[in-house]
Amino acid sequence: MHKAFRELVQKNNTKIVLVVLDGLGGLPVNGKTELEAAQTPQMDALAKSSACGLHIPVSHGITPGSGPGHLALFGYDPLEYQIGRGILEALGLGMDVRKTDIALRCNYATIENSVIKDRRAGRIPTDQSRLLTDKLQKNITTIDGAEIIFAPGMEHRFAVLLRFPEPLGAGASALNDTDPQKEGLAPLPPVAGTPDAEPVARVAGKFVSQVSEVLRNEEKANYALLRGFSVLPDLPSFSDLFGLKAVAIANYPMYRGLAKLVGMQTPVISGDVQSEIDFLRENYEQYDFFFLHVKKVDSYGEDGNFVEKKKRIEEFDMLLPQILDMKPDVLIISGDHSTPALLKGHSWHPVPVLLKSPFVLGGLCQGFSERECTKGELGIFPTTSLMPLALANAGRLKKFGA
Amino acid sequence: MHKAFRELVQKNNTKIVLVVLDGLGGLPVNGKTELEAAQTPQMDALAKSSACGLHIPVSHGITPGSGPGHLALFGYDPLEYQIGRGILEALGLGMDVRKTDIALRCNYATIENSVIKDRRAGRIPTDQSRLLTDKLQKNITTIDGAEIIFAPGMEHRFAVLLRFPEPLGAGASALNDTDPQKEGLAPLPPVAGTPDAEPVARVAGKFVSQVSEVLRNEEKANYALLRGFSVLPDLPSFSDLFGLKAVAIANYPMYRGLAKLVGMQTPVISGDVQSEIDFLRENYEQYDFFFLHVKKVDSYGEDGNFVEKKKRIEEFDMLLPQILDMKPDVLIISGDHSTPALLKGHSWHPVPVLLKSPFVLGGLCQGFSERECTKGELGIFPTTSLMPLALANAGRLKKFGA
Repeated sequence: MHKAFRELVQKNNTKIVLVVLDGLGGLPVNGKTELEAAQTPQMDALAKSSACGLHIPVSHGITPGSGPGHLALFGYDPLEYQIGRGILEALGLGMDVRKTDIALRCNYATIENSVIKDRRAGRIPTDQSRLLTDKLQKNITTIDGAEIIFAPGMEHRFAVLLRFPEPLGAGASALNDTDPQKEGLAPLPPVAGTPDAEPVARVAGKFVSQVSEVLRNEEKANYALLRGFSVLPDLPSFSDLFGLKAVAIANYPMYRGLAKLVGMQTPVISGDVQSEIDFLRENYEQYDFFFLHVKKVDSYGEDGNFVEKKKRIEEFDMLLPQILDMKPDVLIISGDHSTPALLKGHSWHPVPVLLKSPFVLGGLCQGFSERECTKGELGIFPTTSLMPLALANAGRLKKFGA
Repeated sequence: MHKAFRELVQKNNTKIVLVVLDGLGGLPVNGKTELEAAQTPQMDALAKSSACGLHIPVSHGITPGSGPGHLALFGYDPLEYQIGRGILEALGLGMDVRKTDIALRCNYATIENSVIKDRRAGRIPTDQSRLLTDKLQKNITTIDGAEIIFAPGMEHRFAVLLRFPEPLGAGASALNDTDPQKEGLAPLPPVAGTPDAEPVARVAGKFVSQVSEVLRNEEKANYALLRGFSVLPDLPSFSDLFGLKAVAIANYPMYRGLAKLVGMQTPVISGDVQSEIDFLRENYEQYDFFFLHVKKVDSYGEDGNFVEKKKRIEEFDMLLPQILDMKPDVLIISGDHSTPALLKGHSWHPVPVLLKSPFVLGGLCQGFSERECTKGELGIFPTTSLMPLALANAGRLKKFGA
């Protein structure tokens, strides 16, 4: 499909805005979902005249992580393109991951007499952990020619990039986790699962020793467990595929990181959703495609906080007229997955979507909600079909065949 | 997808009940389908609060046999995993088919001067045919080390297993039917289509001769035509794939046989649907997954008997509260295919389904019928997606990707 695509794409001056209310979809509590309970007069009015439906990020019944959810929204099959754990962690911490990097997520741990006593070093506080990570960075900068780059995380977590001077082979990240998963066991040595991974295993082995040396006098955090060895996935670029100059407007590093994976521009945006919309307005002439990410809807869903999730949806609804004022040719409002407060986490449920363009039927939904979207003209469809629909509605796809 | 699946499955204590009303889907006669005409207050109430939709067992326009219909319900792509005719016949007659068996379905036939005079031996009555099959079994028990096992069928039909002492190669069942398909022609010799099939061809050739010898004095049934050489399909087991301890509760041998193919437990259940529900209740603690099969809905559909098909649906509806009393975490009610009385046979029409769980939207359908299910939150989807949905609703699938 991607191959057929490149031949159909044509450029024009249209603007496409994709608003992702992270974790938008929900489930009923006292009869109504978060989106149904929210007062959303703007989105309801829009839904009445838009093409609506529900999309499935990975497959029926499969609960997507943020990575698969966003890749699918960007038009990439998340079963074909998988993002390693180390990479996602590094992106989430705002690291600039490159093609020659091996990314790891690490835990501070406590080791005693060669066995792991605590896999999380007593969940040491973030401010202490941050100091240790700074100290490691000062003491460990290169190993066997590979640059070592640390990023502090929450509590006992941190991330590391092993930046090799030259590109590694396809199997370079085939290494086991060193975490034995149980306390009372010795940590595992990092072992190469392929010849490509051998140089990585050597660097990782020395890395563990050097970290231990630097941390030897720490009471709790005297060791590091390495997990999720991974490399950047090899994704065709968004601009090559779709002919769009694209920007991510996201105030959380992970979502900028995911957008960067497909080659979008990813300026650092700080501040709230209003700041994101301001950026959109101020840079409206510079790009064709705008991915605007609203995080907090998901965060409150994950907390099981129905009321606050509902409020974040309402907040966005009040800001929506500012986006409508820019008159994008195609405006899509949806989520990357569902996060029902009822489940306190991501879920497998199809995600409601509305697509505003002059070229839709409309008139099928009375408002914007999971249940109303079941009546929409888009039906229930794979999330990867959203980009083709966006392009088509923007007049950016030629006829296939004669 | 199956590969991704194994890594996502997690176990817990939930119970999943899949009720298959065989051939459930129908078509309108005087404006209403069988399911619409039936008085089904229980299923109607359940549909109102459940996730509903319609599923397609094989592909649009394709009418599934019982084998593909059930494999799809169990989560196996019926185009990838095909069940040979001989195997299905043997399962339908309740034979215990093993991995080293070649299964055949056979016809008694009349041969005269080396040509087939009647391919069905005058459709001899079942009781006569059964006596002949007993006689064959007494006279033919092994050929070249292969055990020969007969099972009598209806009228001129019977089934045979050639049980080899050791596993055969992948191409072992590549043999032609010996049935020339037209009367007045000589039967064909069984010829091996691959080297793997050569030992089978030798045994089959001797088998035909020995049968002819035993039947030489019969007036009509003096020959056997062999069809549908096949072996057990190599299916990954249901418990490996889905992590479920599963049992088939089915009073017809073929459906137990299909469930056995995927590794479900298949106790012999005799008696009616009430007996099946009694078994469910009495064994509720022993399993995670229950496939409860209701045959008669299909049987009357095949006969073109709209009224009796409707009555079997109503009968099940009256029994449903007994299942609801067990409070399964996930309850699915559906069929393996449609069997409209109007068509007197299986059909290609999508099959209505309701899925009851605490994690659905509900509120979209006014009752349980083909037309109401078009309004449901599940949409129209591949039957193979039903198992992932069941697992997700039972909390048995982890998140895909981070």
